[in-house]
Amino acid sequence: MDFSNYFPVWDKLTAQQQHTIRSVSEFRSVPSGTLLHDGSPNCLGLLLVRSGQLRAYLLSDEGREITICRFFEMDICMFSASCVMPDMQFDILVEAEKDTEIWIIPACLYQNLMEESVAVANYSRNLITNHFSEVMWLMEQVMWKSFDKRLAKFLIEESVVEDSLSLKLTHEKIANHLGTAREVVTRMLRYFQNEGMVKLTRGSVDITDEKRLRVLGDI
Amino acid sequence: MDFSNYFPVWDKLTAQQQHTIRSVSEFRSVPSGTLLHDGSPNCLGLLLVRSGQLRAYLLSDEGREITICRFFEMDICMFSASCVMPDMQFDILVEAEKDTEIWIIPACLYQNLMEESVAVANYSRNLITNHFSEVMWLMEQVMWKSFDKRLAKFLIEESVVEDSLSLKLTHEKIANHLGTAREVVTRMLRYFQNEGMVKLTRGSVDITDEKRLRVLGDI
Repeated sequence: MDFSNYFPVWDKLTAQQQHTIRSVSEFRSVPSGTLLHDGSPNCLGLLLVRSGQLRAYLLSDEGREITICRFFEMDICMFSASCVMPDMQFDILVEAEKDTEIWIIPACLYQNLMEESVAVANYSRNLITNHFSEVMWLMEQVMWKSFDKRLAKFLIEESVVEDSLSLKLTHEKIANHLGTAREVVTRMLRYFQNEGMVKLTRGSVDITDEKRLRVLGDI
Repeated sequence: MDFSNYFPVWDKLTAQQQHTIRSVSEFRSVPSGTLLHDGSPNCLGLLLVRSGQLRAYLLSDEGREITICRFFEMDICMFSASCVMPDMQFDILVEAEKDTEIWIIPACLYQNLMEESVAVANYSRNLITNHFSEVMWLMEQVMWKSFDKRLAKFLIEESVVEDSLSLKLTHEKIANHLGTAREVVTRMLRYFQNEGMVKLTRGSVDITDEKRLRVLGDI
């Protein structure tokens, strides 16, 4: 598929704007683990995911993490364009969770586009609102859902993403997704194991009772 | 001051658009406690605060609340225009915390404006991003800050808003702001009282050591 298929308001751009985007955007393949945006004032711009997987997350002063949202094929990440949005007063990090191919629309070009085109401006507003909704959902989870439900939900979601019931995940990594301490994850996983819902081996979690885990996670 | 002073991109509208807004917008005085937006599909539109105070908050299925942000004079609340933003997939409630005067730009008119005017579209994106930043800040507080710090910060902020060290607040009300249970608030307030930072009487909290409370709250 062509670049234009990945940018939803492509047809609403002028030929000149389309030409500029094509000539200035950059295609990049990044290996798993690459930090694409570190929340610093400099920023890349809009990221269009062609393949692979990105993760946006918060990092506390003490080094704790929590996953805000993920971006898959055809998704667009705007957190990495924070420098063109002075009202975005928070630092989010974006990393490649798998080997990933992206197009980057540079921040300064994108800013001009938003000022020129009402379609791009409104599209960007929708995109931000969409990112916002993810965070509100997460906020409600953290505020009102107990940790066993959040962990069950996370394991099921991972098994869908990976298309496997055997998840290669350390307890540390799960803790970083869910914004908690490793010990808390370990304790709950052991409880899940005692209940026959998972089987733990070094570096992996195997789901052994998917149905019950789904019920627990309200999925 | 005139309506136009309260709408930041007024000068970027056409005479026709200005005329439409003026003739369709509604000025309303609402008493403290009025629920202006209940998260239902119907919505009022953009709220411009002329005087008073609004509160936007989340409500859990079990009836627990947490304050997301507040709007004072000259602020603009977009949560109450959620119906024109299909990507806003969360329910936020908006109530008047004091007797409040607002202008309401009806949702359908505002949607047209965003589609016509790149200035309004970009302004709305900034506004959403701004609301978003408030939530991210809150998220970090809830995730990484301990409750004593959050409570200290809240009491100091209240004293600034009210311009008084004597706060008319029940423990229930504080719990609803901070998204916790009343018992948790009561326990911490008693601890603060033992430490000489506050004095508790029925229905009010008096700050007796502002300086220490500021240090605790990182303000």
